[in-house]
Amino acid sequence: MDLQTTITDFKAHLNRMRMYGQAMSIMNFDAETIAPAGGMVGRAQRMGFFSLEMFKMSTGEEMKGFLEALAPHLAELDKPMQAMYDSCKRSYDAGTKIPPEKVQEFAILRSQAGEVWRSAREANDFAMFSPYLKKLISLGKELLVYRADEITEGGVPYDILLDDFERGMTVKKYDDFFEKIKAVVVPLIKKVTASNKKLRFDMAKVDIDTQRKISNMLAEKIGYDLNRGYIGETAHPFCSGSHKTDVRITTRYDESDIFSSFYSIMHECGHAIYEQSVADDIADTMLGSGTSMGIHESQSRFYENVIGRSRAFWDYITDDLKAVLPAEYANMTPQQFYEAVNESKPSLIRVEADELTYSLHVIIRYEIEKMIIAGEVEVDDLPALWNKKYEEYLGVSSPTDADGVLQDIHWSGGMFGYFPTYALGSAYAAQMLHYMNKDMDVDAAIRSGDFAKITAWLTDKVHRHGSVYTPDELMELSFGEPLNGEYFAKYLENKFLALYQ
Amino acid sequence: MDLQTTITDFKAHLNRMRMYGQAMSIMNFDAETIAPAGGMVGRAQRMGFFSLEMFKMSTGEEMKGFLEALAPHLAELDKPMQAMYDSCKRSYDAGTKIPPEKVQEFAILRSQAGEVWRSAREANDFAMFSPYLKKLISLGKELLVYRADEITEGGVPYDILLDDFERGMTVKKYDDFFEKIKAVVVPLIKKVTASNKKLRFDMAKVDIDTQRKISNMLAEKIGYDLNRGYIGETAHPFCSGSHKTDVRITTRYDESDIFSSFYSIMHECGHAIYEQSVADDIADTMLGSGTSMGIHESQSRFYENVIGRSRAFWDYITDDLKAVLPAEYANMTPQQFYEAVNESKPSLIRVEADELTYSLHVIIRYEIEKMIIAGEVEVDDLPALWNKKYEEYLGVSSPTDADGVLQDIHWSGGMFGYFPTYALGSAYAAQMLHYMNKDMDVDAAIRSGDFAKITAWLTDKVHRHGSVYTPDELMELSFGEPLNGEYFAKYLENKFLALYQ
Repeated sequence: MDLQTTITDFKAHLNRMRMYGQAMSIMNFDAETIAPAGGMVGRAQRMGFFSLEMFKMSTGEEMKGFLEALAPHLAELDKPMQAMYDSCKRSYDAGTKIPPEKVQEFAILRSQAGEVWRSAREANDFAMFSPYLKKLISLGKELLVYRADEITEGGVPYDILLDDFERGMTVKKYDDFFEKIKAVVVPLIKKVTASNKKLRFDMAKVDIDTQRKISNMLAEKIGYDLNRGYIGETAHPFCSGSHKTDVRITTRYDESDIFSSFYSIMHECGHAIYEQSVADDIADTMLGSGTSMGIHESQSRFYENVIGRSRAFWDYITDDLKAVLPAEYANMTPQQFYEAVNESKPSLIRVEADELTYSLHVIIRYEIEKMIIAGEVEVDDLPALWNKKYEEYLGVSSPTDADGVLQDIHWSGGMFGYFPTYALGSAYAAQMLHYMNKDMDVDAAIRSGDFAKITAWLTDKVHRHGSVYTPDELMELSFGEPLNGEYFAKYLENKFLALYQ
Repeated sequence: MDLQTTITDFKAHLNRMRMYGQAMSIMNFDAETIAPAGGMVGRAQRMGFFSLEMFKMSTGEEMKGFLEALAPHLAELDKPMQAMYDSCKRSYDAGTKIPPEKVQEFAILRSQAGEVWRSAREANDFAMFSPYLKKLISLGKELLVYRADEITEGGVPYDILLDDFERGMTVKKYDDFFEKIKAVVVPLIKKVTASNKKLRFDMAKVDIDTQRKISNMLAEKIGYDLNRGYIGETAHPFCSGSHKTDVRITTRYDESDIFSSFYSIMHECGHAIYEQSVADDIADTMLGSGTSMGIHESQSRFYENVIGRSRAFWDYITDDLKAVLPAEYANMTPQQFYEAVNESKPSLIRVEADELTYSLHVIIRYEIEKMIIAGEVEVDDLPALWNKKYEEYLGVSSPTDADGVLQDIHWSGGMFGYFPTYALGSAYAAQMLHYMNKDMDVDAAIRSGDFAKITAWLTDKVHRHGSVYTPDELMELSFGEPLNGEYFAKYLENKFLALYQ
């Protein structure tokens, strides 16, 4: 078969997979938002069925044939085709290197461990969970042996997992990245804590309908196109796109805290605007979606924090917000709002952490995971290690394991290597802000509500490329340098020294 | 391959098809309720893709193999297996008898005709639409030639279309059925019209949130299980079930008319309760859904009209309803509500017709369709024929074709044979009511709100069987006689003579 025919057939195969992926995305959004509780068993069956269909298409004989036929011609392919090949090759390898019975064993173990973790966390009983965590680690490491060829020279097995969740990342890169952040942020947090300054004010309740109006106002102002979107409501907000013409987000409302939904919306709108802004010529391909978790999170953090938690934004939005808020808010100034949404306080729980302290929660998990995979710590010693690091970096330590080493679901699902990606978004965002400021006065754009200008810039540098480029390639292409933690460290220092001077 | 293996493989194939069907049902509900307008093109592509997948599975070589292998063993199969074979055989024949290029030609024509019909109706210009209607009829009849073997002895080509939409129906059966209704209802309508009695009262506005509360109250009271359901909002209410554990309905709200949503909810709950009540042992098969449009509509009409528009129901519900309605409703009596929701008045528009006059709108379309397929009327003469029949049966005639022969979408979609099913539901429902009254005092059950008793009876006779039986088989099995229009005629006569005495 000639190359052109192979390419045509390969594209048709990928198109089939894309249709399945879109269907699963729609069904998943349905499941998370409006689907009745009673249908859970049927939904699980259905999702399992379509997941298996997808797995077959990405690891079956047909895919194997395409990959083998294309391999000798990679240099002749254009960049999008190379990216598609590359993505398929990775999925194929991931789905075929490990014997199916091992995959199944791991799946069953994860499912059991998930149940046990829930009970253990509820009972604040790490000993209940630790036998499962030991098995997860041991089997997880066994699976890595099958993938040993993926370790690049001078690398370690943990690199494989890091690369799974953010293409191109390694222990070496993360170490360097996190050291730069730690060096600035750990002493910065000590200063903030020592200042004893209170920035948050007591908030009057705001009814949900008013908050829904605020959501729509924010979405409209910052440029999330609701004609190609929808705002649902779920306990855990998320963004779900099946195509640039259909990108949905969710939020959750808390009558006692308007900022809960306010910043969920800003955050998810960032994800959604990325998905809505990919170039038309790749929208109908498997490249028509964001390139990585880290880059995706850079966009959500850009809209949430760089824009939404800036003083300039509060200059812009305060009057509009006060116009719909209850009378108790009538005398609030932009500076008061700005300070309130930026209060920083070391705490135990990652998902409740503020912009300044969040990275350290991630760094702690990264450092512990690295030791786990390297066999440098025993599972039974994890609670103590956890608290030691919290004390050292954040000056707090948890009286319970439930709020300590048991707080996150990830390890119970066998997910090692995921946590560090949580720190990438803010760092990429700060790095992009640095370059954006060379091309425009970002504060001025925000203060005048010209978010279209900011989005156009991000679209040019990031959004339009979908996943044609890996994160490294994208950063090099658009900014001439790879990820660098210094920008974020500097951004935090400037911001929080001023807030807590 | 031995029979048992064939059966196992056949069931696995059907299970695959069921998964696709469920996915399409969820995606369709999503499309009708919350999906953003901007994603329409992508959704159409996706639905087209999955429709084609379904088509391949129901008409491909694999299905052919199963049907051929099972055919010699039909007598050995149990009833559900026979029903599955039968249903698959019908789909296979329908999908393979007609050359694909003809199917495509018809699809393109329907799509064009649909567009033109919309414009023609808007412009009140039948001449704009008539060339397309002529082509639709001529090509539609050409397609019937490929299916000529389906005409049973003494039958006519129109029978094939009637059978497509309600298994087992023929011109002979419909003629007999409609004559019985016409004989009673046409003179009855004349009496009602002559009485000049006004039953409807002027209604105070009711805000949408209050109406949503009424929807939930009704659903709960009559036994639609919301743990396995959901009430959405759409311009055209519908019921959509993917499995008995996930059956959703929609309604629409009109501030000026509480009964609009009130009876939509009762109607769709009837459909939903049917779907939610199939027996567990067929729920996970292709038989786990209602058996036909006519039987399905019998359940929606039973809850909407037989229950919801009865005097007994208003004795039951009036106080609960008044408790949530605005003060203007405080003095309403059950009899006043009962009369208001049963006002009958001949009108031009089918979808707005009341319980008494509705059947005649259907009869008119059936009689005209029969003539069209038999070649007994020219398309150009349809507007005049339409008005002649409206004048004769309902005493009204439309000054415009937009409200006359152009009012329904069906013919523009090439759907001939569909209309008459609209009359079956009420007739089946009245027939079931007759037999239910032999087993219990239905009015007493309604008056005491014991809908569980009524649903249990209908579940035993109808719901639990899903689509194991054809409509004819089901009626014979549960009531010992086939469809008979006399029950409905009698029901209307008793009810409306009393209301308009």
